[in-house]
This record gives sequence, structure tokens and C-alpha cells, in this order.
Amino acid sequence: MVRTVVVVAHEAPTTPGFSLDDLPGAGRMDLLARSVTAALLRSHDIRRDVRVALVLGDTCTVRFDGSELRGLHPDERSTAALVRTALEEREEAIGHVPVEVSPGLSLVRKGLADTLGDTDGPVYQLHEDGQPVADCDPPENPTLVLSDHQSFRTAETELLDDTDARQVSLGPEVLHADQAITVAHNWLDTDGFTEY
Amino acid sequence: MVRTVVVVAHEAPTTPGFSLDDLPGAGRMDLLARSVTAALLRSHDIRRDVRVALVLGDTCTVRFDGSELRGLHPDERSTAALVRTALEEREEAIGHVPVEVSPGLSLVRKGLADTLGDTDGPVYQLHEDGQPVADCDPPENPTLVLSDHQSFRTAETELLDDTDARQVSLGPEVLHADQAITVAHNWLDTDGFTEY
Repeated sequence: MVRTVVVVAHEAPTTPGFSLDDLPGAGRMDLLARSVTAALLRSHDIRRDVRVALVLGDTCTVRFDGSELRGLHPDERSTAALVRTALEEREEAIGHVPVEVSPGLSLVRKGLADTLGDTDGPVYQLHEDGQPVADCDPPENPTLVLSDHQSFRTAETELLDDTDARQVSLGPEVLHADQAITVAHNWLDTDGFTEY
Repeated sequence: MVRTVVVVAHEAPTTPGFSLDDLPGAGRMDLLARSVTAALLRSHDIRRDVRVALVLGDTCTVRFDGSELRGLHPDERSTAALVRTALEEREEAIGHVPVEVSPGLSLVRKGLADTLGDTDGPVYQLHEDGQPVADCDPPENPTLVLSDHQSFRTAETELLDDTDARQVSLGPEVLHADQAITVAHNWLDTDGFTEY
């Protein structure tokens, strides 16, 4: 059982020249960092069954694999530093061959389409008009696709449609991406709010 | 309807002499900042019905009132800066009279006992053996009490017992405080996972 979280970043840097002192100013790197840790961390523990893909500017993707990852801390700054370290290796990624940056951390020159092509299992997209998750059977090996602080672009929505992404709602409030990841985990952790 | 979130910080600074460049080293100020934003922020919006109390070292409490708050950003650094600004006003807080730092932000010389004494409505404590929230009717005006990265001290647990705090479980996984706040909000937002 693997859970995959794909976060589509529209304004994030695709090169390492950003400051850790101003993560919001670096294309909302604060939000991306929180999304990584929301997906991968429990209290004092890494979720080994989770993979995260940060799709940056539809040109490259930084990947975190919980099964191998070490040294992920909960704070935004150190997580953003990992993204920056991955971007420093960008020139080493040729074609669609990823560059391994450190255990569980890699970068690959792929956008959203190729990233979705790499996943198995059903794809879920959060949508205010989607089916309530409480009414959905928790799936095996789901891929959850989220947008950053901006809405999905038309081309991305069409791509998700082509992937037969299922639109689900996590509740009546519009949440930040990292909050949505936390709620989606809870849905899956509790097997649809039944196992505590 | 008001939701109150109380976070008990055991190692956090009670003076403003900490660096924004090392929030984890400042008594896990990163976790506290995330707890504040998890409690108070939706996407592009502040939850006006939420109050947060950060109880620092059981000696002073930094309070955020969503009904009045302005300029709260989602990133850890700027939220930690608000806490630091509040601590700079500490000497102005005399007795149990809070000092108003800025709209919706105040500091008061109270510990956990007095902070709980200020709340109305039922008090909830997260506990792995607690009642599943899916089996609880969502309350009116709840106060949710959480500990930081450390467990509640014995005296704190006794205090919660004296307050008739209800022990509830959010799921089988042990979450970070900010993640737990997000899940608890979702429980309340959806009226017990029924309204989407």
C-alpha cells in the first residue's frame, strides 16, 4: 500500500537561487515545504508508505520517497533546504532519468503529465463539488493531486480529466494544500472514519 | 460558536531572545507557529470563530483572536515573529491583565490553569485511548487542549482531569499538534463527517 501525493506548484523556483529567509517570496515554498511534511511525517516518525512529488513549473519534479528518506524535519526551513539541494543537482538529471540527491530524495525532468504517468492506482483531485470522502471507500494505492495556492490551470484540469481523476470533497471549507493532505491522510488512516 | 485551541509548550522561550532562523532550536517554535496557523487559517482566509492560546512555560500565554486578527500569514517564520513581538511586550502585562500587542494579538501572565479557567464550553484532550471523534457529537464552543512535541506533564494531566476534559481520539496514528488541530477542525467543519 502506497500513498502518493502530487503537489502542482505554479510559481515555485526551478533553480536553487532562493533565500531560506523568505520562503513565501520564493513562489510559496513555505506551502510546498509544509505539504511535504504533512504528507510524510507523523509525530516522531516518517510515513514509510508515502511518496511525494513536487511538480515545479511543469518542468521538473522533486520527489520524496518515505521508504528511504532520512533526516526530514518538521519545520519549513529545513524542508525547503532539501528542495534547494535537489535543485542544485538539476543539471545532473538528463532526459527522464532522475538524479538521486540523497536517500529518498531525487529530482527528475518531468512535468505533471509524466508524473501522473508514473503512478498506479486511482487518482484523486480535491474539488468543492466532488463526492464527500466520507461516502467513498478508501482506495488502495491512491494518488492525491493538489494545487498550490493557485487554482489548477485549464491544461492541468484537462490532464486530470484524461487520467479519470475522481473529484472528492474533504469538507465545506477551502483548505491549504498541507491541511488537505492531513485530512486526506486521516480519511485513509481511519479507513473512512471508522477505525480509531 | 467559538472554537478555542490551547497549545501547551514546555520548552518554548518566554522571552523574545530567539532567532527566526532556527525555530526548531527555539523550543520547537516551528511547531507552535504551525499550530497557530493550522487553527486560524483556511485557504486565503482567517477563521474568525477561532481563538488560540499558546501557553509558554506555564508562565505566560500568547493569545490570538481570529475575530480581530490581521496580518497572519501561513508561514512559520512570520507567525513566530508575531510570538516574538508579543514576548517583547511582556513587561507591560501586569498581574492577570493582558497587554494588547496588536489587533487580535495579546499576552497575559497566565499558565494553563488560568487559561482553562477563561474558557467556556467542553474541554477536549486528544488521547490514543479516547473516544473516537466519529462517535462523538460535535460540541458547541469546544476547547481543544494539545501538548507540543512532549507529553503532558503529570500536573497538567491532573489539571485536565479536574476540568472534566473529555478524551477523544482522532485516529490510529499519532499526529503532530498542528496536524491534530487540522483534523479536529475537519471533524467540526463537517459536523462529524456528515456535512460536505
